[in-house]
Amino acid sequence: MSTVEMHPQRWGDPAAATDLPDSARGLVELAFGSAEPIPATPDMTLPSSGLAPDLLAGFRAAVGDDHVLTDDATRRLRTRGKSTPDLLRARAGDLSDAPDAVVRPGSHDEVVAVLAHANAHRIAVVPFGGGTCVTGGLAGPGPGRDGFAGVVSLDLVRMARLLAVDPVSMTATLEPGLRGPDAEALLAEHGMTLGHFPQSFEHASIGGFAATRSSGQSSAGYGRFDAMVVGLTAATPTGELRLGSSPANAAGPDLRQLLLGSEGAFGVITSVTVRVRRAPAVTRYDGWRWPSFGAGREAMRALAQSELLPTVIRLSDETETAINLADPEKIGAESAGCLMVVGHEGTTEQVTTRHAAVAAVLAGLGGEDLGEEPGRAWAEGRFRAPYLRDSLLDVGVLVETLETATFWSDVDHVYDEVKQALSSHLAGALVLCHVSHVYETGASLYFTVAAPAGDDPLARWAAAKVAASEAMTAAGATITHHHAVGTDHRPWLEREIGSVGVRALRAVKAELDPVGILNPGVLVP
Amino acid sequence: MSTVEMHPQRWGDPAAATDLPDSARGLVELAFGSAEPIPATPDMTLPSSGLAPDLLAGFRAAVGDDHVLTDDATRRLRTRGKSTPDLLRARAGDLSDAPDAVVRPGSHDEVVAVLAHANAHRIAVVPFGGGTCVTGGLAGPGPGRDGFAGVVSLDLVRMARLLAVDPVSMTATLEPGLRGPDAEALLAEHGMTLGHFPQSFEHASIGGFAATRSSGQSSAGYGRFDAMVVGLTAATPTGELRLGSSPANAAGPDLRQLLLGSEGAFGVITSVTVRVRRAPAVTRYDGWRWPSFGAGREAMRALAQSELLPTVIRLSDETETAINLADPEKIGAESAGCLMVVGHEGTTEQVTTRHAAVAAVLAGLGGEDLGEEPGRAWAEGRFRAPYLRDSLLDVGVLVETLETATFWSDVDHVYDEVKQALSSHLAGALVLCHVSHVYETGASLYFTVAAPAGDDPLARWAAAKVAASEAMTAAGATITHHHAVGTDHRPWLEREIGSVGVRALRAVKAELDPVGILNPGVLVP
Repeated sequence: MSTVEMHPQRWGDPAAATDLPDSARGLVELAFGSAEPIPATPDMTLPSSGLAPDLLAGFRAAVGDDHVLTDDATRRLRTRGKSTPDLLRARAGDLSDAPDAVVRPGSHDEVVAVLAHANAHRIAVVPFGGGTCVTGGLAGPGPGRDGFAGVVSLDLVRMARLLAVDPVSMTATLEPGLRGPDAEALLAEHGMTLGHFPQSFEHASIGGFAATRSSGQSSAGYGRFDAMVVGLTAATPTGELRLGSSPANAAGPDLRQLLLGSEGAFGVITSVTVRVRRAPAVTRYDGWRWPSFGAGREAMRALAQSELLPTVIRLSDETETAINLADPEKIGAESAGCLMVVGHEGTTEQVTTRHAAVAAVLAGLGGEDLGEEPGRAWAEGRFRAPYLRDSLLDVGVLVETLETATFWSDVDHVYDEVKQALSSHLAGALVLCHVSHVYETGASLYFTVAAPAGDDPLARWAAAKVAASEAMTAAGATITHHHAVGTDHRPWLEREIGSVGVRALRAVKAELDPVGILNPGVLVP
Repeated sequence: MSTVEMHPQRWGDPAAATDLPDSARGLVELAFGSAEPIPATPDMTLPSSGLAPDLLAGFRAAVGDDHVLTDDATRRLRTRGKSTPDLLRARAGDLSDAPDAVVRPGSHDEVVAVLAHANAHRIAVVPFGGGTCVTGGLAGPGPGRDGFAGVVSLDLVRMARLLAVDPVSMTATLEPGLRGPDAEALLAEHGMTLGHFPQSFEHASIGGFAATRSSGQSSAGYGRFDAMVVGLTAATPTGELRLGSSPANAAGPDLRQLLLGSEGAFGVITSVTVRVRRAPAVTRYDGWRWPSFGAGREAMRALAQSELLPTVIRLSDETETAINLADPEKIGAESAGCLMVVGHEGTTEQVTTRHAAVAAVLAGLGGEDLGEEPGRAWAEGRFRAPYLRDSLLDVGVLVETLETATFWSDVDHVYDEVKQALSSHLAGALVLCHVSHVYETGASLYFTVAAPAGDDPLARWAAAKVAASEAMTAAGATITHHHAVGTDHRPWLEREIGSVGVRALRAVKAELDPVGILNPGVLVP
């Protein structure tokens, strides 16, 4: 199993990180002039572990001595997630809210035992999978500890097994600590794939996908993660939950959908049973050019509403298209139009048939077929963007992303409002956008912002984030399409689900976790 | 708008009821000999309305004098639903648990006012749409009133508007009292369809579809009702809920899925925004014959797992196929094999393409193409079965249905176990089964049972129902795929969702409806 530990101040596998390519460096200078690099201090001192010895002993009894870790290196890597603010704080040497210990259960029963001990002694528990969260979902109660006797990071890395495969029902039961590539490798031995490829795929975990309602780059074909889950088990401080009698039913509210998206605040997901597909024999990704973002979006809508979606479909707006061409001369040039990537996966026959049908629709709507090269380029670089962010931070460019979703008739308005909010709060910013998740009734909008970091990038970003969030919720769109609520989106959740919705969440939380040890401060307002 | 009032002792439009056809009568005699007819007493005396005048006045203030009804005829038709036990008790003249009054709000705000009054005075409220429930979901607290000051049927018949249509997003906002045909007629004016056609379609309501997670005969193509809902509003005794920021999102648990299936126990659904489709230009239904139920099911699985599902797909087992052929000579003859109906709806091109693709798979797997006649016959009779049930009760045959769903690898086992449970508890019964809802990972099993009614058909059926429900849950299948929990399935819900699941439901109920006025005794154990 690959369990590469990420650098506490950067994304991903340290061995895979690269310097900024010269072409990008040229772009940066052209766009932002010569920015001041954001240094990373080598001093990453942690507060000492504050958990009393007898409390640590209780965790050791639950999971074994070898799996309760208090060393600095381990705790450092379980401190927060990988949002740009997380990285900025880590670069500045601020690791003040590190957990007191990292506890690594090896089974559902060990998770139950850990929660029992934590519950009895009011110790906060922050479930940890891949550590890729970008919405403050791993924040914990912070340095003040908020009345807790301590904070442990519940690292699920040891729970990384493929527990069962059912080739007749085409389901697989996976443990939560499995990273994306490891899950795919285990399924590939059975000729299967999950088909879930978010940008964080190389590091993110199955449990995280479930707890955050993740959606991957192939969501048009394989569906969102929450649509793949047919069963799950979870451990709560007050009992166990085992759901999944059938693919779908009418036995009351679908409680699976109450645990999915619960971000570790209701319970720890200890396994999921997911619908799997046969591993594709053929994959094909093509590029299409559209004269405008609007024209491309209309084509996406036409496909979605004809039930003719490919496996992957994504469309960059004019700015993102120009930037991605990585040619300084083309920045701001509208002539490049908008690039769409259209991918098909399946049997030879499926790919041939679907490619022909989709291509006919796209050509009929005015798309220009660019062939496979742009698609191949996208597929090769699809997990690289977070590395690029580190390289840009290195040279003084603040880069962050945020996203939303809305109904088709509101997409234009939401796009304009969010873009305007970001531009007006980040002087000189480049705002890029793409659509990468589409439904019959609407689509997501994913924004990338790049701006000179300036003196206080944390404060600059915080103001822009507030403005963008206000714009989304004022327009009736969701505060997040596929990155969860965490702590960062919590102030806007009530705007989205109302006070009755918030009370329902609080009621469930109070019932399952009455002491409030599970991921305090996250999700539930 | 068509709002045909059903006969309190029978299903459907009285004008559409017919006597048992001679062919069926022949079948009945062959199968069961000469049974004793089940009479229907003309005496349908109700208990007098027990709600104090000042309490009635409060409802009149909320909805207007004309919309608080206490006459016997109106109350009689709001007493229970349309399960066979419901009908047997009505035939026997037992209408002892009639509501004290029928209250008809005209808007969301009137529902809010009704609930406020009921909450303040501890009056039970039973939401009522089409009255087609077959699982005891309209039972109310019964004649003893269980500490309530009274029971009102909250009849949503006046809330029957199409509130909004969005042809870009392809959504429509519908009020809960709309009956299936009326909703389709209103949508047809916009060239749209919902595509939701359960057997109860002609009488059931939009609110009921949502509150019970209904699934229609075209679920393979149009999806379950819960998959169509992108937004909803609900009134609870403690506040209003407005959900639906986007087609899908990661803003915490999907609370829409907590209200869907809540059976009026958490709140009254006052509108739903649903994904609609373009009304099909072409419909085509074909018959296919399979040598066995297992062979037909394997073909369904192959289609589902190739993402090649038609709009309608249903498969009768050997017994149901033989009975449906309505030829007494063929009863029990395995030679008829198993009939599958395969329907396609859409544009001419879609239907042509999909029919060809599906037919190629079915022929390749050994199916025998019977052409369009069996498909047409099914489509014409698709809403008639409940009328036939009345005709069979008339001649002394107890008929009832029940259903479940499970994963493909368990379908055989569940089929055998439930069939065995029914047969062994109803001597001389004919047990019919079909599959009519399929998923990539599993399918539903819908059983129809016919047996001589005997002396005490209620008790006979109750014993068989318990045995079948035990068999389902012991096999790990759901207690209901698409008919909700009601009161009838409530004893088995904890087996399916566990004690933690039950506690989560109770916590939400207690938070939103602390006095417990909403549909007491239903859903939540």
